[in-house]
This record gives sequence, structure tokens and C-alpha cells, in this order.
Amino acid sequence: MIIPTKMKAAILTKPNHLEIQEVKTPRPGPAEVLIRVEACAVCSSDVSLMAKPWLGQPPYGKFIPGHEYAGNVVALGRTVDEFQVGDRVAVEAHLGCLRCINCRRGNYTACLNFGNLKKGHRANGFTTNGGFAQYVVNHINTVHPIPDSIDFNEASLMTNLGCVLYGFETVGGYLVGDHVAVIGPGPLGLISVQVAKALAAGRVYLIGTRESRLKVGEEVGADRVINVNEEDPVKVIMKETRGRGADLVIETSGGLESPQMAIQMTKSMGKILMLGLPGEPVQVDFEDVIQKNKSIYTVRGEGRANCARGVSLWASGKVNLKPLVTHSFPLRKISEAFQTFVERRGGAIKVTVNPARESS
Amino acid sequence: MIIPTKMKAAILTKPNHLEIQEVKTPRPGPAEVLIRVEACAVCSSDVSLMAKPWLGQPPYGKFIPGHEYAGNVVALGRTVDEFQVGDRVAVEAHLGCLRCINCRRGNYTACLNFGNLKKGHRANGFTTNGGFAQYVVNHINTVHPIPDSIDFNEASLMTNLGCVLYGFETVGGYLVGDHVAVIGPGPLGLISVQVAKALAAGRVYLIGTRESRLKVGEEVGADRVINVNEEDPVKVIMKETRGRGADLVIETSGGLESPQMAIQMTKSMGKILMLGLPGEPVQVDFEDVIQKNKSIYTVRGEGRANCARGVSLWASGKVNLKPLVTHSFPLRKISEAFQTFVERRGGAIKVTVNPARESS
Amino acid sequence: MIIPTKMKAAILTKPNHLEIQEVKTPRPGPAEVLIRVEACAVCSSDVSLMAKPWLGQPPYGKFIPGHEYAGNVVALGRTVDEFQVGDRVAVEAHLGCLRCINCRRGNYTACLNFGNLKKGHRANGFTTNGGFAQYVVNHINTVHPIPDSIDFNEASLMTNLGCVLYGFETVGGYLVGDHVAVIGPGPLGLISVQVAKALAAGRVYLIGTRESRLKVGEEVGADRVINVNEEDPVKVIMKETRGRGADLVIETSGGLESPQMAIQMTKSMGKILMLGLPGEPVQVDFEDVIQKNKSIYTVRGEGRANCARGVSLWASGKVNLKPLVTHSFPLRKISEAFQTFVERRGGAIKVTVNPARESS
Amino acid sequence: MIIPTKMKAAILTKPNHLEIQEVKTPRPGPAEVLIRVEACAVCSSDVSLMAKPWLGQPPYGKFIPGHEYAGNVVALGRTVDEFQVGDRVAVEAHLGCLRCINCRRGNYTACLNFGNLKKGHRANGFTTNGGFAQYVVNHINTVHPIPDSIDFNEASLMTNLGCVLYGFETVGGYLVGDHVAVIGPGPLGLISVQVAKALAAGRVYLIGTRESRLKVGEEVGADRVINVNEEDPVKVIMKETRGRGADLVIETSGGLESPQMAIQMTKSMGKILMLGLPGEPVQVDFEDVIQKNKSIYTVRGEGRANCARGVSLWASGKVNLKPLVTHSFPLRKISEAFQTFVERRGGAIKVTVNPARESS
Repeated sequence: MIIPTKMKAAILTKPNHLEIQEVKTPRPGPAEVLIRVEACAVCSSDVSLMAKPWLGQPPYGKFIPGHEYAGNVVALGRTVDEFQVGDRVAVEAHLGCLRCINCRRGNYTACLNFGNLKKGHRANGFTTNGGFAQYVVNHINTVHPIPDSIDFNEASLMTNLGCVLYGFETVGGYLVGDHVAVIGPGPLGLISVQVAKALAAGRVYLIGTRESRLKVGEEVGADRVINVNEEDPVKVIMKETRGRGADLVIETSGGLESPQMAIQMTKSMGKILMLGLPGEPVQVDFEDVIQKNKSIYTVRGEGRANCARGVSLWASGKVNLKPLVTHSFPLRKISEAFQTFVERRGGAIKVTVNPARESS
Repeated sequence: MIIPTKMKAAILTKPNHLEIQEVKTPRPGPAEVLIRVEACAVCSSDVSLMAKPWLGQPPYGKFIPGHEYAGNVVALGRTVDEFQVGDRVAVEAHLGCLRCINCRRGNYTACLNFGNLKKGHRANGFTTNGGFAQYVVNHINTVHPIPDSIDFNEASLMTNLGCVLYGFETVGGYLVGDHVAVIGPGPLGLISVQVAKALAAGRVYLIGTRESRLKVGEEVGADRVINVNEEDPVKVIMKETRGRGADLVIETSGGLESPQMAIQMTKSMGKILMLGLPGEPVQVDFEDVIQKNKSIYTVRGEGRANCARGVSLWASGKVNLKPLVTHSFPLRKISEAFQTFVERRGGAIKVTVNPARESS
Repeated sequence: MIIPTKMKAAILTKPNHLEIQEVKTPRPGPAEVLIRVEACAVCSSDVSLMAKPWLGQPPYGKFIPGHEYAGNVVALGRTVDEFQVGDRVAVEAHLGCLRCINCRRGNYTACLNFGNLKKGHRANGFTTNGGFAQYVVNHINTVHPIPDSIDFNEASLMTNLGCVLYGFETVGGYLVGDHVAVIGPGPLGLISVQVAKALAAGRVYLIGTRESRLKVGEEVGADRVINVNEEDPVKVIMKETRGRGADLVIETSGGLESPQMAIQMTKSMGKILMLGLPGEPVQVDFEDVIQKNKSIYTVRGEGRANCARGVSLWASGKVNLKPLVTHSFPLRKISEAFQTFVERRGGAIKVTVNPARESS
Repeated sequence: MIIPTKMKAAILTKPNHLEIQEVKTPRPGPAEVLIRVEACAVCSSDVSLMAKPWLGQPPYGKFIPGHEYAGNVVALGRTVDEFQVGDRVAVEAHLGCLRCINCRRGNYTACLNFGNLKKGHRANGFTTNGGFAQYVVNHINTVHPIPDSIDFNEASLMTNLGCVLYGFETVGGYLVGDHVAVIGPGPLGLISVQVAKALAAGRVYLIGTRESRLKVGEEVGADRVINVNEEDPVKVIMKETRGRGADLVIETSGGLESPQMAIQMTKSMGKILMLGLPGEPVQVDFEDVIQKNKSIYTVRGEGRANCARGVSLWASGKVNLKPLVTHSFPLRKISEAFQTFVERRGGAIKVTVNPARESS
């Protein structure tokens, strides 16, 4: 396979400004592969880090964002026999240093050497170059083969699926018959609904404000949607569970009132999983949490190789992320892609760009 | 509802001899309900305890066996508001003493006062009267409402489903994408296949010798069946998992060579769940178990309220136990029911009797 | 043993008013014992429920508070062979209904039928009569034999020890070498320090404001005490753990700023255990919790039979609660006992009354 | 620090034959350190692999065995700031490939690329050169600083302590008040006794045949020793636990009858931890295991960074491995060291050699 020495890439040249430039195509080192990027999705963390640099982010003019992508393996680094050229793959973002105490115990998304490239940590699209480019290098730990039944746009959402699965693993995993409430009908919420059903949860509630997204929630399996503008979700869930509450509540909205809402609708001995990032401190009633033995779990990212589990779930047809990818653009229209995502134009949920199809 | 003072019941009058007699209809005490039995399934433990009494078994002439049954609630004991007369229900066998250290921690199927009626332990069909009768009394902890979509014959298999679910809970419960091998295509094996699929396992293997049962296995979801008479299951699984083995192996056959087979086909760091009772000591290679960090779990019975989870799974349509109930008989033909089960006449898998329909 | 038909007891006749009255001595029913109370400790929840009735509390004039007590078994109810008359015992407060789903799984302190006496729930000193009396009846599940080396005043603190142990079990229990920070040098905090050391924690910090209590903390094993008025505990702990934080933070103070402090001093992937009840909603930064994969656990009460484990720990000499019992009074001086406790007179930590020694 | 270019090392030149040769001193690569070996202990796996090569073992004439060692860091590889020259350290044996699914989840001692040097797996003393030499190179993941209070001979037993701790973590870790039986008073058994006491176990039994080793067991904390030649351990434990059995049984002897003995003395719902390798298949009664819900766990090696926890335990003085190191020899007398160990001359338990003190 002939790989051009130059490629097109979206460079963050200043705050909130991406510029398509021609740069050197990277080469894979030991335990790495080179991927030609077919699709890279826009994530709200991209929006955030473009406005104000995150920890360990490369300087303006040197940094290609994008951490949610999929494509084809086009070259193998030394020692790699886990993949072959031509493999269709999707990626996860975090490669731990593999030497701190968290990494040693398998918790590489909570690496204590985050951003320390010298010690081996990498987070493509955060601290190293990502997927808003025609080619990108990934350590094999962050690469997963995908079935032919999943197109690249859908596949680019792998970390979303991996993150939700990691959340379910973290709360204990076995939830046959348990009632689940999901707050926030965005990508993580809509995937949470599907995973809950795929793991044989009892009744699954989805709570939000946008009717269009709640409708998608129904399509992907929510047993009951609650529009906060029309009903009080705590009352509804308490009533329908005979005053007990949900066994598991998953907060994905990041809303400032959502954590307290989550607590209130959780059963005695129940669990809360927090995935959505509230931008600022929030008020919660710990008295309720403690008096009823509730516990609060969080995950950051797609840890413990849950993306590999996600591939299996995808292949089985038990989850379907296609309805989440509402818009796709060529790489050169990346700014339009971001605007579409941020402004939720045309009911946008997830928006991707497709660099490989760009004429180079 | 008028409940007759006398009822028909199958009394164990001597070894291997059940006699239909007219006896006094029991009455429910506090926290108990009276059930009219619509279906009671024959279990291999019934066959065993009829041949030779088990621990705590009542004397000949005084004992009604049968621990897998379903029916309608027809009377409520004091303090019961969890059920209403007319509820369709199925039961689990074990009520712990609720005062030993195992019961206090929720492990009531491993009650340390097994058979001690004075202290509150009951196991209907083992140490107290069971369901081969028109009426039976159950403590509410052992009773579960069933959806209308499940008929009583199917519902009588509740403890089988509960036992398998308890097994999955015991091994950790989160197995998205994990490969599972099930040894033994009997009731527990065929349910294990279904539960593994319902919990989003990866590839599910079913291993056995009877072609007819393996065929049922395929119908209920096994990805690959292996007939031991035709293929070496260890070799097949090792080959198809690229030399790694299954993440979870469930041994349900009770065969003397099955535990060692289970060990050999388990992945490094993998788990083995033993459900089948081998009648005598067996040989295993613990060197393999230890060198590869494998662990062995067991459950006895349908613990930790997993029958309640089973109801939800049933209602969702994700498991279907109907194909397992191959034969049904009126109560008066209970001997024929046992013979059909023991000799596997007509491809018998599970066989039920239907006491309520008996003219009393 | 002759048991008088009448006994002295402290009756809650109106808000904040206890009156010593002569009432009928209770009799133990099945699975119960009668205890002659040698010591009953004052707890802050007693202070609270005397001011304003808690859920399920008996009416004024009919209620004997006190849930932390120890004494001698003086009579056995039917079926009891777990105890003998003369046994020295201490108690836990919560007896679950043993029929709700939480109780069935062993989580009886989170009983869903709290306060429902008809269904079997009891919480002596909360919803049924307690230990500020010469005699009290307890279900055997709530009674534990104590070694001769523990005097009754110390033994009355059993639920405090059980609650802390339950907390350690809930967070996973294996903490060899982990650094632990304890906020609040009250009874639960001082016990947490001791249990952390007894379970081979690494460095144990104790954080508070009262120098006298911090000094007790040092005596019972804290490696480092931090007076919030003199040092910033987050800075100290971050510095001494090379910027990482504590693996486990236990919040026992109930202070409104303590939850956020706990979060800030917790390591990435670390755990927070909340035992102290803040009276009102508090502000916390969930962004920090989520971005660093921290989790928050709570326990209410002394669940999962951890009091039995506490007895063993006591007998081994690895914990010593004697320094916590600073004052003792005869039953008739119970008001003085409460005042001493509430006003922390003479450096009071725990205060007990001694009913048995009262002339009856 | 001047490091000689040549060093003395014990080379395995043919089966059961170690020869002291002068070879090139190795140099540390990235993320590695060079250690001057002060003490390297003889392990029974050394005896085994010298008789017949283990998986991935280098050829005769090229291999330096020895995987239990301690010494001083004398040189740092690139990127290493976790250590300084002069640090006193001890090592663990296993470095996983850090890219297989087991390694990614933190289970590096069960690396699926065992022996694959190209992919990064190393096991010093098994698949790469070990510590029967004056110098050895270790990846930093396998190196732990040790307190001054631990001398190098004791420190060389780090993997033994790490393995036992990993075992306790694997069985769940929280064992306050649980009764523990340890079979086999060798190094792992004697450490198991100490760790059980350090984690606040209830009564700890030690079972064996050699009176001298049982005596050491008593010295290091066993509450009760049972000499199999004099008493039936199953009967003793059953009697002393009122017919219930031990909550945890740890089998360290590798004896062919020990697994069945372990099963018999385990409580209903109890756990068995298998550490000792029986050389051949053994007979066990799985009926007992299954009917009483017992589970069997194993660990191979000192996984999940438990050696780091071991250092803390050591520093606290809660374990003392000194009595286990009964003999030490200079490197040139390594054959005598092995003979002393194998023949248990002079009551030998652990035997070390001291390479650094050799004149080079």
C-alpha cells in the first residue's frame, strides 16, 4: 500500500480555529499501527479544548484534535502481529503510561502520568495528534477490529460505547431485572439506554427536555421517556416503582440539577453512575444518600478494554449507534461540522468528518 | 374462594413409591400464602431423594415431594399484603432460617440451620411438604408473581432459571463479549445458554452427547454445539479462540470427566461455574488451574432472590423455557411422569404433573 | 433468675424530656432474649429524635429511647439455643423485616419496610423500645456475645464499631498499604482510625478542630493529625503523598464543607466513604469526582452482621474503645448524661448510663 | 558509581548444573534499572526448572536463574525518575507484555504472551536472566523500594509475600473475624499465617507434619497448630468451629491429599485459596463443594502490584519474614545452597545466596 508522505490535517492554530494544512504523514513505531481515518466524530470535549487548552495539550499550530475515529490499518509498526494491513478498525483515546500504580492495576484511563509523553502516556486528540487528519498513529492497545456490518461513521463512536460499558462494569454489572433511569438523551444517554436493555435491565427510563431526542430514545429501546418540561421525573419513577426508586440511575446530562435529581430517584441500596460533567460545583443532599445507603460511581473514559466488549455487542446487533450519527462532512468542511454539532442544527446528535475521502 | 378441607397429594410411602392420597389441606400462617398447584415439575433430585432420604426429609407416609411448582394464590396468611388472592405465581424452594450468619448476609440457600424447622428453615419438597399436591403453603419470600405470557408448566421451572442466574451473579455477572462454554444440554445447560446470550456474551458453545438435545440448544441460541462423540470439545474451543479458551465454562452435566474438561477449556484468568453434581469424587489437574489463575465457583439452588430477576427476564421474552417442558401428566399419573423423565422417553427433558386440574 | 415484673425506664414524654418511670418488664418472644441493661450510650441520633420524632417512632409517653447498649442475657424466648442465661452481650439496633428485597440480600439496615412492626422490622431505640431501661427485649440477630475483657460501658459502643466495619467492607475491605484520611475526630472517626490500622492501611491521617480529640486520635494510632485551624489538610495530604492524595477518605464529621474537602484529597481512582450526616444540602465539585474516577460510598448503620466481626476485633485487642467512653451516669441522672454529651462537658466523647445498677 | 564491565553469575549449563562464570554486566534500557544483587533466594521452582526447562526458558549456557532477589539500584535507564542510584530495593518476577487482554486489565502475572520477549513479556529468572548474579536488569514495574529495617536476605522473599497478598486480595480481602486454616508450614504457609493475623482474621490454624516448622508457625502467630501425624485436622477444625468449618482455607503444601482436605474443612459459603502446586492430578469431591456453595480461587505469582502493598506491611512490622531465612551462602557456594534447601538440612526453610559480597 502506498502511503503519501504528506497528508491533510486540521490543525488547531489558535483558540476555536481549525485550519486544514498539509503536514508530514506520521509513521508507526513499535507496537503501533498507522490508520487511514475514514470518520472522526466531534465530541463536546473537542469544543471545550479548542476554546481553552486542556492538560498536556500540544501548542497551537502543532496540534491535530479528534479522538473518536475509525478507519483502515495501512501500516504496521515493529512487533505487531495483532493486526494486518487492510483491517477495519476503531480506536479508543487513552493509552496509559503502563507503569504507574493505576495503570499496573488496569485502570489506564486514570493514569497518574497523564500527559507525560516521555513515560509513555498518550491520549490521541488530547495530548498527541488525533483523527481530524487523513492518517494517524495508534498504539495497538487503543485499536479494535470492527465487523463489516458497522460503517465507519457509526464506528467512530466506539469510545462512547466503551465509556458506557465501563460505567456498567464499574457499578457491578449484573442488572437483570433492575430498573434503570437515564438522565440526558445525548449520545451517552442514548447508548446507556441500549446497553441497559442489552444487559436485561427491567424497566428503562429516559429523562430529558428535547422531544426529538426523547423520540430517538424510544426508538432505541427506552420503556418510558419523561420530558422534564411536562412531568416531574422523580414523582413518575417513585410512583411507577411503588415508592422505591430506580436500582441504577445514570446521569449523562451534565446539568447542574441533575445530580440531585439522580439521588432523589435512586432506591435505598441503589447506585448512581455519573458520566456527565457539570461545569461547576453543584448542590446535593448527602443526608439522603447516606440514610439510604446509596453509592455514587464515576468513570472517565472507556477503561479496562471495554471497547473490545463493545465490538462484540455491536456485532451481535444488540446496540445500534447509527441513529446517533445525524450528519457527516468532508474534512475541509470541519468548521461547518463543529457548528452543526454545537448549535444542534437539524437535530444534530453526533457529527462526523470523513478525512480519507478528501482528495489528498 | 372456597378451599376444600381435603386435597389429593402424592405421598412418599416407601422408597421409590408415591401414592395418591386424600389428606388435609394445609393453611397459611403469618407471612405465608396458600397456593393451588397448577404444575409441578420432576427434578433429578426428586428421583434421588425418593430412592434414599435426603437430610431433614420427613418420614415415609408423611412426606409430599415436589419443589418446582407454579399455581394461583388462593389464601393469604396474616400480615401478607405483597400478594392478592388470584395472583399467578411460581416458587423457589429454599427459605433460610434468617438467623444464621449465612442467612443474615443474604445467602439463605446455604443456611447453616438446613432442615431445622424449629428455627424457621424450610425447603418445600425436601424438608417440608411440596408441590405434588393440589395445595401447598409457601412463605412469601419463596413466591414470585409471573406474567400472563408464561404458562404454569413453563413457570414451574422457575428454580432452574433462578439457579442459573444465581450462578451468573456469583461469577461476577458482567460478561459482555466473553466467550462461554456450557457442558451438558439438560435443563440447566439449555437455560445457561439462553442466559449467557441474554447477558450479551460473545460466542456461546454447548457441549453434549445427545443430538436431539443439542438441536434444542441451537434453537435456544447456542452459536456452536459440539457433540463429544464426534469432536474433541477442548480442541474445538482452543482452536476457535486462538489458543486461549473460554472466559467462562459452565459445567451442568454432573459427568465424572466434565470438571477436568471444563478446566482444560478455560482461559488463563477465566472462570468455571459448577452446577452439575457428580455422584462421586473426580480427578482434576489443579496444576493447570493454579498456573493459569483460574477460579472455580459453585451455587446450590436459586439464591439471593434471583428468581425475582428471572421473572423479569421471562417477561422480556429473552429466555424461553417452553421447549424444555416436553411432557405433562395429571397428578394421578405421577408414576408415569417419573418414568418418562428418568428414561427420557420421547426425548423428555422436563416433565410436569398438573394437580389442580385433578377432580378432587 | 428472678426477673421483677416492673422496671425503671426513661420514657420520652414530650420533646426533649425524658422521665424515669416504673413500667412493665417486657418478655421475650420466639427468637428473642431479655437483656438486663448494664450500659446504654448516648448517641447524637438520640438527641435528634428527642427533639423531633424520627420515622416510625412510638408516641410520647410510650417510648424508651437508647439503641447502643450492653448487658446480660436473663431470659430466653422460644427456640433460642444460640445464647444462655448469664451471657454477656452487646447489641445492634436494626432487625430487618427479612422479607423485602434488600433484607433478602442481606442488606437489612436498608430494609424497605423500615418502621413496619407488623412485617417484622424493629429498630430498638428508634421504632421500638430501647436500652435506657433496666430490661429490654432483642431479637437474637441483634445480639452478640462479648469477651470478658470488654467492660459493659465500652461494649455499649458496638454499633459504632459495626458501622465503621460495615463501611470498610462496603468500600472493598482490602487496603493493605493504602493511605487513609479520616475527617472528624468523634466516635466514628476515632474508631475509623483504629480499624484502618487494624486492616494494615499505610499512613492514616486524622483531621479535626479540637486539639483534645486529635490527641486521642494520636493515642489510638493516627500517624498524623491535622488541625484544620492550623494547616490546610488538602495541601498537607497532597504534599505527603507526592501529589496523589489518599486512597480512601472517610468523612465522619457531618460538616458542610467536609464532603468537598474529602473529594479534593482523594486520589485518582480513590474512594470516599461518607458516614457523617450533614444536616442540609452541600456543594461539591463532581467534575473532580468524575474526571478522576473517584467513587463515593455510604453506609447507614452496622449492616451485614459486622458487629459479629467487631467482637472478634475487640477480643484481639486491635481496637480499644475505652478511651472514647469519657463519662458514665446512673439511669436516674440521664438528663445530666445528655447534657454532658451535647455540651461536650469535660471533653466528653461518649457518655453512658448504667440502668442495671439502679436500685429497682 | 563505577560498574565493572564483567560480573560473576551462576549459569545453568546443563540440567541441574549451575556454573559460576564471568559474563558481561548488563545495561538498563528505557524504564529499567540495574540492580547489584545483595541476596537471591532459592525457590522450589528453581529446583524444578533446573531439572527440566520451563516454558520460554533460555538455552543451557545462556541462562542465569533466580527470581527472588534484593539489592541496590546502581544505574538508571532512560526516563526513570521513580528511583535513584543507591535505593535499596527488592523485586517481583513478572513483567507482562502490557498489551494482551489480561495485562490490559491489570492481570499481568497471567500474561497471554508469556515468554514472548519481542512483545515485551519478561520473567526474570524464568524467561530472562535472573538474580543469581552480581548484577541484573529490571523493568521499574518489578522493582520496589524497601525500608532500612528489612535486611536484604529477608527482602529477597518479596515475591512470596506479594503472592500471598495477591491471594488474599483475590478471595475478597475483608476477613475481620473470619477463621482461617493454612495447610503447609513452608514459606507461603508461614507468610499466610502472618498476613491472616495482620488482616484481623479470627482464629488461624496451621496444619503440617514437621514439628520444627509448626513451631515456627506458632512463633509467627498461628493460634493453633495441627500435626497431621497426631490429629485429624478436619475433625479438629470442625469441632472447634462448632461443626461449621473455616471461612477460608489456604492450601500451600502441594500435597496430593491437601485439596480434598481443604474442601472438607471449609464452611458452607466458605472459600479455598490454592497456592501449592500438586505435581499431578488429584481427587476431590465436588459434590461437597457444590452442595455447600464453596468456591476455589488460585493465584500464580505476585500480581496486581501486591508487592508494593507488601513493602508497607513489612515497614509496619506486622509481618516478619526473618525467621524464614535460615541459611545464606556466598554466590560461589550456590550448589551447597541448593542442596541445603532441597534436603532441608538443618531445618532449612528459605536459603539465600549473596552475590554482591563476592569479590569480583
